[in-house]
This record gives sequence, structure tokens and C-alpha cells, in this order.
Amino acid sequence: MSQARLLITCTDRPGIVAAVSGFLTQYHGNITALDQHTTDPDRGLFFMRVAFEMPGTEPPGNWLQTEFRQEVAEPFGMDWHLAFAARHKRMAILVSKPDHALLELLWRWSRGELPARIAGVISNHPENQDAVETFGLPFHYIPVKQGAQAEAEEAMLEQLAAWGVELVVLARYMRILSPEFVDRYPSRIINIHHSFLPAFAGSDPYRQAFDRGVKLIGATAHYATSELDAGPVIEQDVIRVSHRDGVADLRERGREVERSVLARAVRWHLEDRIAVWGNRTVVFGT
Amino acid sequence: MSQARLLITCTDRPGIVAAVSGFLTQYHGNITALDQHTTDPDRGLFFMRVAFEMPGTEPPGNWLQTEFRQEVAEPFGMDWHLAFAARHKRMAILVSKPDHALLELLWRWSRGELPARIAGVISNHPENQDAVETFGLPFHYIPVKQGAQAEAEEAMLEQLAAWGVELVVLARYMRILSPEFVDRYPSRIINIHHSFLPAFAGSDPYRQAFDRGVKLIGATAHYATSELDAGPVIEQDVIRVSHRDGVADLRERGREVERSVLARAVRWHLEDRIAVWGNRTVVFGT
Amino acid sequence: MSQARLLITCTDRPGIVAAVSGFLTQYHGNITALDQHTTDPDRGLFFMRVAFEMPGTEPPGNWLQTEFRQEVAEPFGMDWHLAFAARHKRMAILVSKPDHALLELLWRWSRGELPARIAGVISNHPENQDAVETFGLPFHYIPVKQGAQAEAEEAMLEQLAAWGVELVVLARYMRILSPEFVDRYPSRIINIHHSFLPAFAGSDPYRQAFDRGVKLIGATAHYATSELDAGPVIEQDVIRVSHRDGVADLRERGREVERSVLARAVRWHLEDRIAVWGNRTVVFGT
Amino acid sequence: MSQARLLITCTDRPGIVAAVSGFLTQYHGNITALDQHTTDPDRGLFFMRVAFEMPGTEPPGNWLQTEFRQEVAEPFGMDWHLAFAARHKRMAILVSKPDHALLELLWRWSRGELPARIAGVISNHPENQDAVETFGLPFHYIPVKQGAQAEAEEAMLEQLAAWGVELVVLARYMRILSPEFVDRYPSRIINIHHSFLPAFAGSDPYRQAFDRGVKLIGATAHYATSELDAGPVIEQDVIRVSHRDGVADLRERGREVERSVLARAVRWHLEDRIAVWGNRTVVFGT
Repeated sequence: MSQARLLITCTDRPGIVAAVSGFLTQYHGNITALDQHTTDPDRGLFFMRVAFEMPGTEPPGNWLQTEFRQEVAEPFGMDWHLAFAARHKRMAILVSKPDHALLELLWRWSRGELPARIAGVISNHPENQDAVETFGLPFHYIPVKQGAQAEAEEAMLEQLAAWGVELVVLARYMRILSPEFVDRYPSRIINIHHSFLPAFAGSDPYRQAFDRGVKLIGATAHYATSELDAGPVIEQDVIRVSHRDGVADLRERGREVERSVLARAVRWHLEDRIAVWGNRTVVFGT
Repeated sequence: MSQARLLITCTDRPGIVAAVSGFLTQYHGNITALDQHTTDPDRGLFFMRVAFEMPGTEPPGNWLQTEFRQEVAEPFGMDWHLAFAARHKRMAILVSKPDHALLELLWRWSRGELPARIAGVISNHPENQDAVETFGLPFHYIPVKQGAQAEAEEAMLEQLAAWGVELVVLARYMRILSPEFVDRYPSRIINIHHSFLPAFAGSDPYRQAFDRGVKLIGATAHYATSELDAGPVIEQDVIRVSHRDGVADLRERGREVERSVLARAVRWHLEDRIAVWGNRTVVFGT
Repeated sequence: MSQARLLITCTDRPGIVAAVSGFLTQYHGNITALDQHTTDPDRGLFFMRVAFEMPGTEPPGNWLQTEFRQEVAEPFGMDWHLAFAARHKRMAILVSKPDHALLELLWRWSRGELPARIAGVISNHPENQDAVETFGLPFHYIPVKQGAQAEAEEAMLEQLAAWGVELVVLARYMRILSPEFVDRYPSRIINIHHSFLPAFAGSDPYRQAFDRGVKLIGATAHYATSELDAGPVIEQDVIRVSHRDGVADLRERGREVERSVLARAVRWHLEDRIAVWGNRTVVFGT
Repeated sequence: MSQARLLITCTDRPGIVAAVSGFLTQYHGNITALDQHTTDPDRGLFFMRVAFEMPGTEPPGNWLQTEFRQEVAEPFGMDWHLAFAARHKRMAILVSKPDHALLELLWRWSRGELPARIAGVISNHPENQDAVETFGLPFHYIPVKQGAQAEAEEAMLEQLAAWGVELVVLARYMRILSPEFVDRYPSRIINIHHSFLPAFAGSDPYRQAFDRGVKLIGATAHYATSELDAGPVIEQDVIRVSHRDGVADLRERGREVERSVLARAVRWHLEDRIAVWGNRTVVFGT
């Protein structure tokens, strides 16, 4: 059997589930998990993720997508994505000096916990080269010189295109990317911000958290948009801190949350669990 | 529009979602939320909860159930339950002296957070009578005399039957009910146990927790079965404690977890979100 | 034995613990819990909470305070507070229509979980009168008429003064109090804000949280200062929400967090566990 | 300045804090953090951790310990431990095939988050040799042959003795160690068990958790004693799971909790924060 999933967004109206499930039954697909959400039954948005099995050891050819488009997707005006579990998405990681989020992703990936093909890692610092190459992955050092951000971004975009990347993960990449860069991968760049957004957007959030005297610190994984730290939130988590923790303690303790929040968000994207709706996300079946 | 939900369990095979959703479309039902789970695509169990809207301000008559049985449920060999949101389930609460779980339920119910018709409260102690009557609910004091457990249970069962109760909540009812009692309401008696089961089953779990020196204490809401503290778990939660907490502190801090865990479990049952599978539960869409 | 505690803030320098503990030993006090924190060993601030027992069934007279002032507090330039557990602090609650935080406090207090003498409840709405009087407490309805905030505050301050109140709890009091009001009870007004501050300060935080699409919602208990929602944080907590939760769901689920966060903060204040340091708090031994 | 800490256990009686702090003041020590706990003011046990600074860039010689023993420890009958932060404890890690707990410890250690001198790693499997050597640490493969557990333990004890190890961490070492082995390092062997003990002691706890249908899974770090999975608990934590998670999912998700729980427990031991009291622990100032 071949595992597949279908992620659908469209305007709600009666009959969508029946049309999709009827289509799958007709082509001998067996639904193994289905999760559906409607923002408002009256003219709201309809979201659905269907995981199903198709007969045969190989994923079916493009005919399934063609048939689905004609029979179901176009009549209902759907945004949709059909993916086969056997075909992992191609992903790249951008990172600066801090290595904790990067290593967490590589570590989980090397154990089979992240269903991706990692094309490589790009960094504006050379420090993580050895660590990355230990995992058998290419490392590209693309420094960002004073006043030459555009050239650096151009070089990064070229590399990402050469790799055919479908997902870009900012695993503590500490430069602000231009709107032009971000717009090239809409809802396909995941950033980890080291605070519970919208609190402490911008620079040095642990310092901000310390100064405000909060009792919990957090991390937020979100899709990058052209507005800094304002894109759709995918996942957040927090841990408790106390008056005993200085800024350095917050940084250290926060790393653990950053690591796990980012890893969950990346996994959910790779498993086609996330639909974007304006500035919010629907995350299915986790 | 009239809100309804369908909770289904059957052996998995292709076409179930298509049959159910096709049926609903045919009768002008609009699916607003659907959650499905399969334990194993190959001869496993299939679970599904469908929330949908039917046209008209009144719930449709029994014809919908009759049609569904004939067209869908019987061909697929389904265990199924069709409920209308406008018709709240009839529920009774059994309690002993501790009032925290009882009051939490009554308080939430009085705000509209628990979609139930509470028929009344039964207790083996008279202490909570005033508190219950403040909420405009009947209170029945049914003491359990030494060696007369059977008579007391008989009286309770008569009262529950007279009320036409569909759900019994043990909100810290401190007597062990006989298997005969429990078997009268299969998967329809919810108990709150004041530990993270299976740890500390039996009596005085906070004392047991203190003696073991655990760093977290918890509570477990589960369906009662004839085996004490061993029924299917619906919900669990924990809170952190420390060496500073004595047994009395654990009891006090634990009350908060007991209250919220029980309230969640009862609500999920009332909303038809829980399917039982052997000694486990599937809890949908929370 | 008589239980007491001493809460101390002063500039750090060697010998403070020795002076305090030597003093207590000299007067036959036995330390039962001690927690100390220094922001910076080099010219930082020193905070300490000492719980101790004094011989005798009655708290000692003022001589203990006089001696401590002369022998220890003045030489070290301490801000200090000596309290006896047997003498509960006098507290008032201000509330508007929402009753959940109010009832949680009254409920815990009636079980002995909050060591306070509650003098009474003041509200700008009459709705909670019956609920408050059920607990045997006075309820004062002080409406705030258009353009007459100052008169209403004057009436409230008079009532608080008549009660001899030492702690004011804003249990969802939905009016902004003037700086003049707030300054009358420095570090002695505890407010519950229904968000994880500093996110979503100001009005309707659940709506703000929904609009931002966060995955956790929270509550913050803090000392009120003249700047709205900006005072020293005492306690915070969060719970997980999902795309299924609308604004009304966030409000309902948030109530549970508001209740427990506020109850913890009030208890800690009553137990003299909180020291304020600029815009932050030190919370001892919880 | 030189950082030090003193961890003390003795029978409670008045004057202990005064004696210890007076001693430190006399020798120009400045207390920077103090945490004290008494199990019962009347003949209970007294626990205290004091962090302090001594003048001079080098830790003082043995004279401080000699003086403390004579002036304070012996008169009060104390169990005590004086450690200097600059002198890291010597630690060894025992591991079998699973590498997640091992790598988490090495990773944190390499960033300076675990104040230890790691002497080396011993394993009954060769698989983790490369990973360990990457960190510049020795790896000893000591297989346990059928019926030759005693010989293997002998070899391990020799190696640990040769290293002068003060702390042994079982980072998923999957063999049961003999009481003779465990008794050689009382309260100095930390084990991570992959369940929320006392639930699911023994083998394959994730399978047990799945079979019981729990809604949270956990991990427990504890000191090893001669009774399996029954030693004093240092730290525990849990994460939420659902009906969607099979045994393999529980294993994968549980790794994250195992990693963080073990890392915290090891760190607290290295910082002299843990006192053992019968089968329980006092954990100070975290």
C-alpha cells in the first residue's frame, strides 16, 4: 500500500466531504485519518486533511492528481495539495552561530523522526560547518557583508533554487530577510522566534523577558512573512522561570523550548498538517 | 439550523466516510467538523465523530435515525449514536463529603459550560444538601449503613431510573460501587480518581504519592468498570509539587487538578466526543 | 508555638543571614524555612524570607519588633515586615460582573485555603450580591456613573479605609482605577489580567489572542501600578488552545487559568512570600 | 572571589542557621543564596543549601573544611558536603544502544551547561563509540556476556575507580545492575526511567502505557538503589499523548522528556542541590 494525504481549503458548502471521500472510494483509496474544520458553517472556510492508502507498492502516477482536479477540486474551487508519504519534501536550513536548533533538527532527521530530504545548510557564519558535515550534508557559508545583504540573499536564493527546495527552516538565522526573499517561499519558510509572540518581538527577547519580570518564557514557530515576527503562528510553548534566573539562564533554558517547538512545527509541515488562513494556522491531527 | 453529531465505531473497510457523508449530503446535512481515527488500516477499528447541521429549527424526527440505520449503519455493522445538540443528556452526580468536584460541575453547568440536564445529586452524607439546593437541584441523601450496601445501591438505582439518567458522574463518591451497579451503566459512569492512574490506585492516593516522593501529582477521569480504578481513561493531568508539600498540601493542590480534569471529561462525554475501545478511549476534537 | 515570618529587603553585604538568624536564636526562635536571594553579590539587593516558631501559644508582643528594629533592621538599612501566621491580613475584593475569579477566592477562603480575613466585596454592579452574602460577607454596590469616576473611587477608598484593609484584590474589576487610587495601596493591590502579559495588554485580550492566532492563552496576576497592565508580575500560567476555539471558547477556557493564577498570587501575598524589586517580584518558597 | 556551596542534613534544633551563617561571616564568606527546609520543627530533619563567596581567586585550602567540621558540623551532628564551583565533579556515563539521553548530556556539557568533568562513557554495545569520541571523550565497550554479568560489572567498577568517578549516570543503560554495584555509589548513581514512576516500573514502559491507555506519558530521574526503579525520585515530567499515538509514537515523543528530565537531574546533582531523605529527595533552589 502507498500512503498519501490530501490537504484542502475552500469555501464551505454542503457535500465537500462526500465528494472527496466518494472520489477516494471510487479509486480504491482507504481513508486512515480525516480531520476537518469549518470556520463558520454559513459562508465560512472549510479545511480538511485526509490521510489515505492507495493499492500498490508505488505511489500512483499523475493521473490521480489530474482526476482529482477535474472531478473534485475545480468544481469546489479548492486550494489543495496531494502528497505521498514515500516522497519526502526537500528542505534547507538557514542558521547563524547558535547551533541548538540546527542540531536538534539534524539529530531528529538522522533518526527518521523528520520525514524530509535535507538538501543542505546555509549559514552566514562558518562555525557550524563541521557539525553539519558530520551528518553527511553540504554546508554553504554565505557571509552577509556590510551593505551587501541583497547580494547575499541572491546567492542564497540561487542555492535554494539549485536544490529545488520546498521548505526553508530558519533555525536561529539571525539576519532579517528582505520581503523579496520571504515572498519567494510563501507559507514555506518556518522561523523560530525565542519568545512567546506577540510578546517580545524583535531583538534580544530574553533580555526583554528578564526586564519585564515574566514568570514563563516561551518560543514561537511561525511562517515568515514580510512583516518581522508577525507571520502565522504554527506552534508555541513555554517553561517556568523564577527570580533566580538571570538573562543567561533564560537563554539557556529557552533553548530547550526553542528546539522542541521548532522540531514539532517542521514535522507538522512535512506531514502536510498545516493550513494557513489569513494570519492564523489550522494544525490537524497532532 | 439544528446541530447534530454522529459517533460511529465499526470494523474498518473502504468507503465508510463516503457512505456517511453521502448520506448526510442526500438529506441536506452540512458537515461542520469531522474527526476520524483508524487503529489499523488492515482489519482495524474505525472511529468517527461527525458534527453537522440539518435544515429547520427543530431537530428532525426519528426518520433520520431510521434511514441512517437502514442505509448506512446496518450494512457496515456500526455501533453508532446520533445526538442533537439541542437535547441535553440527563445526568446525575454522586458525591460524598468533599464538595470541590461537585461544586465545580454545578458552577460550570450554571454558566452554560456543561450541556446537560442535571437531574439531581445523590450523596451518602447530608453535608452538601444546601449547596446543591442553591443551584435549584434536588438532593437525595442515601446513607450506606454497615452491611447494607446492597440496599443503598438499590435505592440509588431506583432514583437514577426514575430520573431517566443517561450519565452518572462520581464526583468524589468515596464508596466502592458493586459490579452489579457499575454494569447497569456501561461507559456511562465517569469517576474522578485523585492520582495519575495506574499509579496510586486504591485508597488515599495523596498519602501514597507523598510516601513515594513523586514530583508531580495528578488526577484521572475514567469510565467506571467492575474492576476498581481500572476502567478506560478519559483525561489526566498533573501539577508540580515539591519537598515542601506535606500530605495536606498535596490534597489541597490536587483538588484543583481533580476539578478541571473531571469537568473536561464530563463535557466531552456530553458532547459525544468519546468512543471506548477495549480499555482505552478515543477522544475527538478537543 | 507561634508561627511567624520575616520578609526582608536590603543592600547586600556580608553578615546579614548571621545577624538575623543570631537574633532569632537569641530570642528562642526556631527557623523552619528560609529562602534567600541576592541579585548580585557585589552591591546587589538582598532578599530573604524566614519562617520561624516562637515559644508560647500567643504571638509575642511588639517588643520583638522593637528589638529587631534596633538590633538588626536599622543597622543593615532593611525594608522589613514581620507577620504572625495567627493574625490573618485584612483583605477586600473588587469585582464587576464576571464572578469566576471572585467565587474561586471565596470558595478557597471558606475552606481555609486562603489565610485572610475578608472584610467584604465592592462591586460596580449589583449582580454578585447574593453570591457574596451566601458566604456571610458584606457586599457594597458602588456604581460608577458617567463622569463620576472620582466620586466612586472616593467612596471605595472610604470603605476600604473603614475596613482597615491591607490587601485589595481586583478579581476582574473592569474599570481602570486612577493613579491616585492605586498609589494608596502600593504593592498591595493584586490584579488578574486575562492574558499572558505583556502580550495583549488593554481591553478584550481574548479577542486580541484570537486575532493573532496564538496557540496558548494565559493569565497574569500582578501588582497594580499607575501604568495599566504594567505592574510587577506575581504569577502567570497558560493553557493550550487550537484552531477549533473561537473567542467565546478562549474566554471560557481562560477562566480556569485566571482563577488558579489569581488564587495562587493572593495566597502567596497573604503568606508574605512576595518581595517587589523595581518592576519584578521575588516569590519565595512556593 | 571563589564560589562555594554547603549542603547540610541534620536533626533540627534551634540555632543551626545562626551557627552556619556565623561561621561563614567569621571567615569572610558572603552568602549569595540560601535555601532551607525542615520536615518537622519538632524533632524533624533539617536540610540546608548555602551558596557563598570566599575572598581570593583560588578556593581556600582544606583548612576551611577542618574548621567547619570542628566548629559547626560535629557539634550539630551534621551530614555535610562542601564543594567549590571551580572544581567540577568527575562523572561517567553508562549507556546501551539508545543514544538520545547520552547525546543530550554530551551536547549540554560541551556548551558549558553541565558543570562536570566527564571522565568517559561505558557501554555494553559498541554503537555509540564514534559519537562519544567526537566529543573528545574515551569510550569503553564492556559487553555483558551470557551468565557473565558479575565479570562485566567488575570491569566497569575497575574503570570507574580508575577514573575516580564521583557520579555515575545511567543514560538508558538497559541492564539491571546488581545490588553490589549499586551500593558502591550510594546516592551517586542517577538513572532515567522512561515512565512516570511508580506507574510502569520494569521493562517496556511505553508498551505498558499504551496498553493502559494513559493520556500523558512521562519520565523519571532517580537515584538507583538495590530495588529496581524504586529509588528516590529527583525529577519527573510528562507530555500529553492521544489515541493517535501508537507504541512507536510514545517511544519517540518520550525521548524528548527523558532527555530533559535526565539533564535537569544531573545538573542539580552537580550543583549540590539534592539531599536524600529516606526514599525522597529535597531539591533546592531550581
